[in-house]
Amino acid sequence: MYSERFTKLTPYVPGEQPQDRSYIKLNTNENPYPPAPGVAEILKEFDVETLRRYPDPNSEALCHAIAREHGIKRDQVIVGNGSDEILSFAFFAFFDSAKGPLLFPEHTYSFYPVYCDYYDIAYKKVALDDDYGINIDRFVDEKGCGVIVPNPNAPTGMLLSLDKVTELLERWPSDRVVVVDEAYIDFGGESAVALIDRFPNLLVVKTFSKSYSLAGSRLGWAMGSEKLISALYAVKDSFNSYPVDTLTQKAGIAAISDRAWFDKTRGMVMAERERVSEELTELGWKVLPSAANFVFAGAPDRDGKAVYEGLKAKGVLVRYFNKEGLTPFVRITIGTAEENTALLDAVKSL
Amino acid sequence: MYSERFTKLTPYVPGEQPQDRSYIKLNTNENPYPPAPGVAEILKEFDVETLRRYPDPNSEALCHAIAREHGIKRDQVIVGNGSDEILSFAFFAFFDSAKGPLLFPEHTYSFYPVYCDYYDIAYKKVALDDDYGINIDRFVDEKGCGVIVPNPNAPTGMLLSLDKVTELLERWPSDRVVVVDEAYIDFGGESAVALIDRFPNLLVVKTFSKSYSLAGSRLGWAMGSEKLISALYAVKDSFNSYPVDTLTQKAGIAAISDRAWFDKTRGMVMAERERVSEELTELGWKVLPSAANFVFAGAPDRDGKAVYEGLKAKGVLVRYFNKEGLTPFVRITIGTAEENTALLDAVKSL
Repeated sequence: MYSERFTKLTPYVPGEQPQDRSYIKLNTNENPYPPAPGVAEILKEFDVETLRRYPDPNSEALCHAIAREHGIKRDQVIVGNGSDEILSFAFFAFFDSAKGPLLFPEHTYSFYPVYCDYYDIAYKKVALDDDYGINIDRFVDEKGCGVIVPNPNAPTGMLLSLDKVTELLERWPSDRVVVVDEAYIDFGGESAVALIDRFPNLLVVKTFSKSYSLAGSRLGWAMGSEKLISALYAVKDSFNSYPVDTLTQKAGIAAISDRAWFDKTRGMVMAERERVSEELTELGWKVLPSAANFVFAGAPDRDGKAVYEGLKAKGVLVRYFNKEGLTPFVRITIGTAEENTALLDAVKSL
Repeated sequence: MYSERFTKLTPYVPGEQPQDRSYIKLNTNENPYPPAPGVAEILKEFDVETLRRYPDPNSEALCHAIAREHGIKRDQVIVGNGSDEILSFAFFAFFDSAKGPLLFPEHTYSFYPVYCDYYDIAYKKVALDDDYGINIDRFVDEKGCGVIVPNPNAPTGMLLSLDKVTELLERWPSDRVVVVDEAYIDFGGESAVALIDRFPNLLVVKTFSKSYSLAGSRLGWAMGSEKLISALYAVKDSFNSYPVDTLTQKAGIAAISDRAWFDKTRGMVMAERERVSEELTELGWKVLPSAANFVFAGAPDRDGKAVYEGLKAKGVLVRYFNKEGLTPFVRITIGTAEENTALLDAVKSL
């Protein structure tokens, strides 16, 4: 009944969304603050009758707003149904293991190998440094068909400086694509979008899910040379012509245009991240230096699974990765000050 | 820079959405009536703050509502970001041309060959009868790896009776999937969903875009045996875990639960379709018998391209297909009574 390609899939497993009781939910890196007030205005003013029409297939107004915000051209932007869809399109268009395996970090977003299986792309996991940082020398040495790195990386939260990203691009073949997945960049890093004019093989992927508090709307985007972006439009039009609904296109414009709200909320997340990191460190935890809206941290006296289970029993949900090398840690999303205090109290009472 | 698979794509071209002037837009089969009033209520009551959370990845409440409406089990339903996404997942999961080409009608939804290119599936177009109807004998004789037929077919609008669909399934190998794409079934046909318990290899695909007036929301679904549906969930979780946004899940429930609105609006569309068909016939046009929310019709004195251009100059947009065998025709979406009258007036003045 199934295709051969289907039998090779190992689906991605998203973080749990339990329905049995109410948790302090720090397991899926959601933003603790609501989206920009303009999003509520959009909903209030929205003319429902327009839903009988198809949306703008290319989300022109939204792409213009994104381009304006980043000081780039409209034709250097494409949006999709979450950055996951954009990533899938990029894997389709740019990675072909006839030219060598796709390279990504040993510990990283676990959807990457799933996309590889989906499109039958061979891949190679590149080891992290002993401190869990990404070592670009190891990528350059491997000579694969392409590279994808999240920056900051997940689940470690660790940042690659813009200088390091630039160095990677300088040392990497200019005819092979490098995707920098910046889902978390707004919480403490510098975006590689500044490099897209210099490196036509660079694709920068971002999302409204984290720093814009719109995970529920499913909206992500990519920025790169016109050449890469036009390829992604061709893939989009070979998969789903209208990936972003009418209301979400408008919500995205409202969210990305409110820089004050964006800066205020991400500022609060970053301040809380520093507090949580410091307090956990004082409690003897090993906390990796994070530039994201989560911390990856290990308790001094028990492994990640025990921490996860202990916190869950106390009503705090964090994420545990049952993978070699990651078992000492849990990933803790930064919540509101109140949620973080509850987390720290739960940790102390473990 | 590109993968080999990318170089094989020929993207789908959606109907034009011109911005230069205001048209009577009868070219993309949109519903002329707004969605059920409950959809506006959903928007009004919606708590924007919930958008900071990811949506329910499997749209449980919406799937339950759809199952209830069709008298089937929840596990026989999956929803996606428009029926186009669901179709793409079905092509991935079920069609493998190692077992023979995928079969679909010679003239049909032009996205099917695009999905085949996307997943490298060989296909064979099966000739229509002289009257443009689908001939199931020709499908049975071809012995491909699977079948996909829209019912009613597009752009012809012609219906395959439920008896004929049943006969196709009876004569088709039970280990090869048959997809019936029922985007337009609510405008005059009987759904094959009644057959899913009897034929575990039958997948029925539907959409909220047409009969539920929610093209702008991007929402479609499939119904079939638990075996087929669970495969589609695995594909979904290998492509995009959260394909349907939070608000659209709620809007879909409101739309599918209002049977009175559904019956009233599709009734008006069907009545208008009969009027447009009769009047065009009286004007000497050849009008294929339609069970959809559009008619496929050819003028007595000029080809489809000339009709399309003539009507566009008069402010009425219809769709023309520049394909051998279809050039005598245009596809005209059924609008409001007023829009249809304007169309008929424009036709008379050509």
